[in-house]
Amino acid sequence: MPKALYPGSFDPITYGHIDVVKRAYKLFDELFVAVMRNPTKPMLFSLEERQQLVEDVMRQEELTNVKVISHDGLMIELAKNLGVSAVIRGLRVTSDFEYEWQMALTNRDLGPEIESVFLMTSREYSFISSSIVREVKRYGGDVSHFVPKLVERALEKKFAEQKKS
Amino acid sequence: MPKALYPGSFDPITYGHIDVVKRAYKLFDELFVAVMRNPTKPMLFSLEERQQLVEDVMRQEELTNVKVISHDGLMIELAKNLGVSAVIRGLRVTSDFEYEWQMALTNRDLGPEIESVFLMTSREYSFISSSIVREVKRYGGDVSHFVPKLVERALEKKFAEQKKS
Amino acid sequence: MPKALYPGSFDPITYGHIDVVKRAYKLFDELFVAVMRNPTKPMLFSLEERQQLVEDVMRQEELTNVKVISHDGLMIELAKNLGVSAVIRGLRVTSDFEYEWQMALTNRDLGPEIESVFLMTSREYSFISSSIVREVKRYGGDVSHFVPKLVERALEKKFAEQKKS
Amino acid sequence: MPKALYPGSFDPITYGHIDVVKRAYKLFDELFVAVMRNPTKPMLFSLEERQQLVEDVMRQEELTNVKVISHDGLMIELAKNLGVSAVIRGLRVTSDFEYEWQMALTNRDLGPEIESVFLMTSREYSFISSSIVREVKRYGGDVSHFVPKLVERALEKKFAEQKKS
Amino acid sequence: MPKALYPGSFDPITYGHIDVVKRAYKLFDELFVAVMRNPTKPMLFSLEERQQLVEDVMRQEELTNVKVISHDGLMIELAKNLGVSAVIRGLRVTSDFEYEWQMALTNRDLGPEIESVFLMTSREYSFISSSIVREVKRYGGDVSHFVPKLVERALEKKFAEQKKS
Amino acid sequence: MPKALYPGSFDPITYGHIDVVKRAYKLFDELFVAVMRNPTKPMLFSLEERQQLVEDVMRQEELTNVKVISHDGLMIELAKNLGVSAVIRGLRVTSDFEYEWQMALTNRDLGPEIESVFLMTSREYSFISSSIVREVKRYGGDVSHFVPKLVERALEKKFAEQKKS
Repeated sequence: MPKALYPGSFDPITYGHIDVVKRAYKLFDELFVAVMRNPTKPMLFSLEERQQLVEDVMRQEELTNVKVISHDGLMIELAKNLGVSAVIRGLRVTSDFEYEWQMALTNRDLGPEIESVFLMTSREYSFISSSIVREVKRYGGDVSHFVPKLVERALEKKFAEQKKS
Repeated sequence: MPKALYPGSFDPITYGHIDVVKRAYKLFDELFVAVMRNPTKPMLFSLEERQQLVEDVMRQEELTNVKVISHDGLMIELAKNLGVSAVIRGLRVTSDFEYEWQMALTNRDLGPEIESVFLMTSREYSFISSSIVREVKRYGGDVSHFVPKLVERALEKKFAEQKKS
Repeated sequence: MPKALYPGSFDPITYGHIDVVKRAYKLFDELFVAVMRNPTKPMLFSLEERQQLVEDVMRQEELTNVKVISHDGLMIELAKNLGVSAVIRGLRVTSDFEYEWQMALTNRDLGPEIESVFLMTSREYSFISSSIVREVKRYGGDVSHFVPKLVERALEKKFAEQKKS
Repeated sequence: MPKALYPGSFDPITYGHIDVVKRAYKLFDELFVAVMRNPTKPMLFSLEERQQLVEDVMRQEELTNVKVISHDGLMIELAKNLGVSAVIRGLRVTSDFEYEWQMALTNRDLGPEIESVFLMTSREYSFISSSIVREVKRYGGDVSHFVPKLVERALEKKFAEQKKS
Repeated sequence: MPKALYPGSFDPITYGHIDVVKRAYKLFDELFVAVMRNPTKPMLFSLEERQQLVEDVMRQEELTNVKVISHDGLMIELAKNLGVSAVIRGLRVTSDFEYEWQMALTNRDLGPEIESVFLMTSREYSFISSSIVREVKRYGGDVSHFVPKLVERALEKKFAEQKKS
Repeated sequence: MPKALYPGSFDPITYGHIDVVKRAYKLFDELFVAVMRNPTKPMLFSLEERQQLVEDVMRQEELTNVKVISHDGLMIELAKNLGVSAVIRGLRVTSDFEYEWQMALTNRDLGPEIESVFLMTSREYSFISSSIVREVKRYGGDVSHFVPKLVERALEKKFAEQKKS
């Protein structure tokens, strides 16, 4: 049965991402979650920190069969190398759908044998984004509805470090 | 491996629908295509005619493992009865995405164990809709880029009958 | 303090509408809910039935200060006659926002002293529409997450009557 | 220099349409305005009445070089027969842009030599649609900001006739 | 009667913002306009300069009962501290509506007792944004339709300073 | 017959842009392509490099009557100085349409005599953007479907230079 890849920045991973992982996990035999370097946007957490958080969350959620990797390069090349049939995208109602579409069409051109599969995030988590989580936590707001406890602690530690320097 | 259902009115089936069937077919072990009665909209072809056209097209395209059925009732009940994991929706760039979303959220409420899976129609067919095919053909326009020959002939026959009565 | 009007077809009233009523009720001193005749769309329930359902729901929800009326004519004329400052519109993420905007701009031209106020429906109810409720119930689906019990019974009665005739 | 065609239902013509005509008129040497029969939607005015209103308005606005015609058939066939280079579409902010796009892509397939040219309606008129004009006037509302006097009178006469029958 | 908060960057305040203030002012007994620090985006004017411009404009427009404040932190915390019932958002047709929605849903989670109230900007000002005003003025374009004279002068002074340094 | 201006960043020019140039070229007697400096966004290629690439591509495509210029300032001022009747904008289905609209309305305010004319990019190229081309090429992906060979070579040279420094 087909393998799938769920790529993202995960800066940091949220309940929205976890919800997508769980949905994809039920549909596919093998699921890779790939933390992408993405050098064109500044990130709060390093690639290694982001991968570590995803791995910690997968273990805690007992999604132990999900393979967490990181990648510096074109997503579609990674998909080809892994031999996946599908690339998973989580759709939130408030997604930048036009951008998603543009990327998916570009990827189809670069790797026509790989299908873009859009899954709908749970209504409960459909408005969460990593950038809003970072913005709320930077000001000391409560993000416990948006991210697991261990991610919240990582955010606290990161912002404490930033203030010191 | 999971089974999937691709429901629709198929009034009539177009190259856009066929493209989605082929994509879903690669991802799922078993695929049902269900022609829905849909009594709230007037249809050009009867339920039986629409099912026959889908079956003829599947045979011609050698998609012989696709099961074509028809249904009069709630789609989500059909999905439960068939024991599918996923309901397939074809996304065109010009889809009525808000409506798709609303239906998918309603279906999640009625059948939370069944996933809505959105696949992207080929760029080539991404603007075709059954209603535009009907409109163009009604005026004698060329629809050979939009539907297979056998569907074009069915449209010609139908409009010829309508003119007589 | 300002008065407000919340107009709609309410064919039938849903938890989404009730959520908007409660939100508007907290903001305004006096709230009118107006059931509009709307002759351009066929309705399942008569104007009288729709008004009765809204009244029954308001009583049950103990929103006893909300005034329920019905109107056959231009909404903006009703708003002027009632002397309200604001017309309430419930925004769902899946709203036909362009249509809402067009109506609001037209209404501003016809009654510039009356403000269109958009309130956001609860995430929980943000995908419910009367038309989906009717469609689901017509096929015997469960609508208890979408409408109060008394509305569900009215739908059952209505569809039973339709089958007889 | 190129000729252009501006097709529509014009049921009835509004200040929004007139604004588009004036803009297209400045850009093209020869401009056709075509009133389309459109049998799939019920119309308030007959094809002949709609064409007459457009002609009357063109005369009043002194757009005497604009050629007003009517057509029963595919728009793109008309465009080919007239030998135009461009088909004009008026874009309002509240347009059903996805539908416009779908039609334009279909037309490009049926007549690739003819360009779809989108012009932006004036902000002042950007929310007017024929259907809202009919709805407001049906209830006796003031439509003098939306349509010329002669169109308003035609609406009054039409609704008076409808009431009698 | 309820109090309301209208938060924003106001870099600088435009006729669009002023229009929203006037509309909110009619609906609420007490209105706060809060200039937010917003450290994630670079600003042209300092927090103090932006607050001063808002205050000067309020005085000039004789909106003397509007309270102008500035805030460095989460907007929803400010709303709670001020005891407001509503947070005002101005909707332009060209708003980034998805972003607005996402923020409003996040805020509802962080402060469920506070309502997001969307008001429609006047058609005349519905396309103005601070960023376009800055871009046009940077090149010496005329912004007198978009901002009051005193804001235009502040922009001129700021750009003259930037050129010197 | 009217002159037209097609402005953009062209960082770098893509098959999408070339498609728009060809469409505009058929409609207008004289066509200017203007490479804009755009100091608010960081560019990969310098203004001179971008202009050179556009010129090279125009020569190769034998669009020798197109005048390629560069401009540092407001686009609408350039349009006035050139005496054009129309400013061309290419619409992709995945355009940021709201932004396009906002700019077009602003430009109409600054130069009401100049028409914004939206042309539809070919379906084949409708998802290409300069930013995606840069992103794909940066990682060594194949961009030969998106840009002419000479642009591809310029990208390779640029990224090779960046790696050295």
